[in-house]
Amino acid sequence: MAPAATGVSNAAQAPTPSRFDPTFTQHVLDTMGSNVTERNRVVLGSLIRHIHDFAREVELTIDEWMAGVRFINAVGRVYSESGQTRNEAHRLSDILGLETLVDEIAHKIISESDIDPTSSAILGPFWSPNAPFRENGGTIIQDAAPNGRVVLMHGIISDLVTGKPIPGAVFDIWQASANGKYDFQDPQNQTPNNLRGKFRADENGKYHFYCYYPTAYSLPTDGPSYQLLQMMDRHPMRPAHIHIMVTHPEYKGCTTQLYPKDDPWLSSDTVFAVKDDLVVDFTSLKGDDKAELELDYNVILAPKNYTGKPF
Amino acid sequence: MAPAATGVSNAAQAPTPSRFDPTFTQHVLDTMGSNVTERNRVVLGSLIRHIHDFAREVELTIDEWMAGVRFINAVGRVYSESGQTRNEAHRLSDILGLETLVDEIAHKIISESDIDPTSSAILGPFWSPNAPFRENGGTIIQDAAPNGRVVLMHGIISDLVTGKPIPGAVFDIWQASANGKYDFQDPQNQTPNNLRGKFRADENGKYHFYCYYPTAYSLPTDGPSYQLLQMMDRHPMRPAHIHIMVTHPEYKGCTTQLYPKDDPWLSSDTVFAVKDDLVVDFTSLKGDDKAELELDYNVILAPKNYTGKPF
Repeated sequence: MAPAATGVSNAAQAPTPSRFDPTFTQHVLDTMGSNVTERNRVVLGSLIRHIHDFAREVELTIDEWMAGVRFINAVGRVYSESGQTRNEAHRLSDILGLETLVDEIAHKIISESDIDPTSSAILGPFWSPNAPFRENGGTIIQDAAPNGRVVLMHGIISDLVTGKPIPGAVFDIWQASANGKYDFQDPQNQTPNNLRGKFRADENGKYHFYCYYPTAYSLPTDGPSYQLLQMMDRHPMRPAHIHIMVTHPEYKGCTTQLYPKDDPWLSSDTVFAVKDDLVVDFTSLKGDDKAELELDYNVILAPKNYTGKPF
Repeated sequence: MAPAATGVSNAAQAPTPSRFDPTFTQHVLDTMGSNVTERNRVVLGSLIRHIHDFAREVELTIDEWMAGVRFINAVGRVYSESGQTRNEAHRLSDILGLETLVDEIAHKIISESDIDPTSSAILGPFWSPNAPFRENGGTIIQDAAPNGRVVLMHGIISDLVTGKPIPGAVFDIWQASANGKYDFQDPQNQTPNNLRGKFRADENGKYHFYCYYPTAYSLPTDGPSYQLLQMMDRHPMRPAHIHIMVTHPEYKGCTTQLYPKDDPWLSSDTVFAVKDDLVVDFTSLKGDDKAELELDYNVILAPKNYTGKPF
């Protein structure tokens, strides 16, 4: 049944301790048939090799393996029992740093000039495809929060190469309310699409709207991901942040997050999504009776066909 | 928040391609606090390192990562929606070879003599703690199956070091019926504990009872594990087998499986649990009107404190 070994067999291999059957992993890989796509052979081959190397490296015990089996079942059970509003496998990969790593792999661009495009950061589980378009100068605050501090957020979206503004670029923003919860999680206090909205940059590439100063929050503390954080003696906090996704048909989109510079969780964000150019300064605002703070944030997008310097 | 790096940071590392942030994985590991047990630091540190190395090695795409997230959620959903009778995460680790590898890590003994203890093989998801004790000479067949071929199975359980029999050793057997299903999976045709039973070796270390010639079967073909097998162009078949678990308080227990020598799936068992000394010869039986076949199988157990040769 086993086909001849293919290229993947020779892919990068961690050294395998010789005390265990040195042919076993290759035997498992060789049961893959001839109708596997080349990409699946590479990806699944590497995954199996790393799982085996992990087990041999730590001499994984039967009890530890069974704990892992129970853990994986429990992750999907949360998804099922929450009515699929809580994506625990997504959260799990976030606390292991995997989403941030995949984001880096997908979006890393090394600029050919001194100017870099805006860094990306993970999407997270709370983006909604249904956020409404709102007018520039409007607000995403549908439901006032007792401790919410209103911010006038504005800036210019511009082209990495030419430096020119990008009229019509879409600035999609979503954020948790002052209680640290998104509309999905907080139906008692928030109407659908509270603190979500899309704004279209004007002819000068400018956007502006009102939102809240962001609030740090804890990941849920009742599921398997939190149990894993506890095993690792890690806190469940995300620094305060505003999510944005900036798109235009002729540019590479940028999904990212912005963090107040004085947040205490910046260096230990539980999902590892902080990058230096995403740490921002909210300043006091005078003369606008709608907001007490201001955030001036410009976004730089790379053209769709921009490749940058090779790695 | 991050403690100083500990020993695990210097553990075996796969080469990390340098095109991505070379400090990222260490940063994730360093967020572990000081109250992690040393074992958890090693195991979870290695797991995170291998997950990251896997993602970098194959340059995992966002779509592939999201497919993985959906897959993990789906695995636990099967467990939840089956009323927990179907342990999909266990099955998943089996088809990736992980249970067989963990079994090898736990049970590998290199004998100091020419005689080896009976090889172990994976427990699988169908063992029951509730199997009844039955008398030697009895049968585990409670519910006759239309195509079942009855086997008289017998043998001696003996000590690896002295060669002497082990009176009182418990021989626990379980098997699928002729339709390839265990009692758990087949309540229409099978009563609880059909084809399960424990036998206590007599004063000469001997056991004997009636069972069925085993039947090859397919893993379920309706869940995420099967989808993964299809992606790998692998069949879902297990060779025909009889499960046994042989125990005695003064010996290392042996959980294993026995396979008829002419089974077509021996070399490509979908859970990789076949070993040479577990392939057996069923022979024709004359003069016993209860059975048409015979299996003579002796089990060799290592004393509890036996360490064998060092690896």
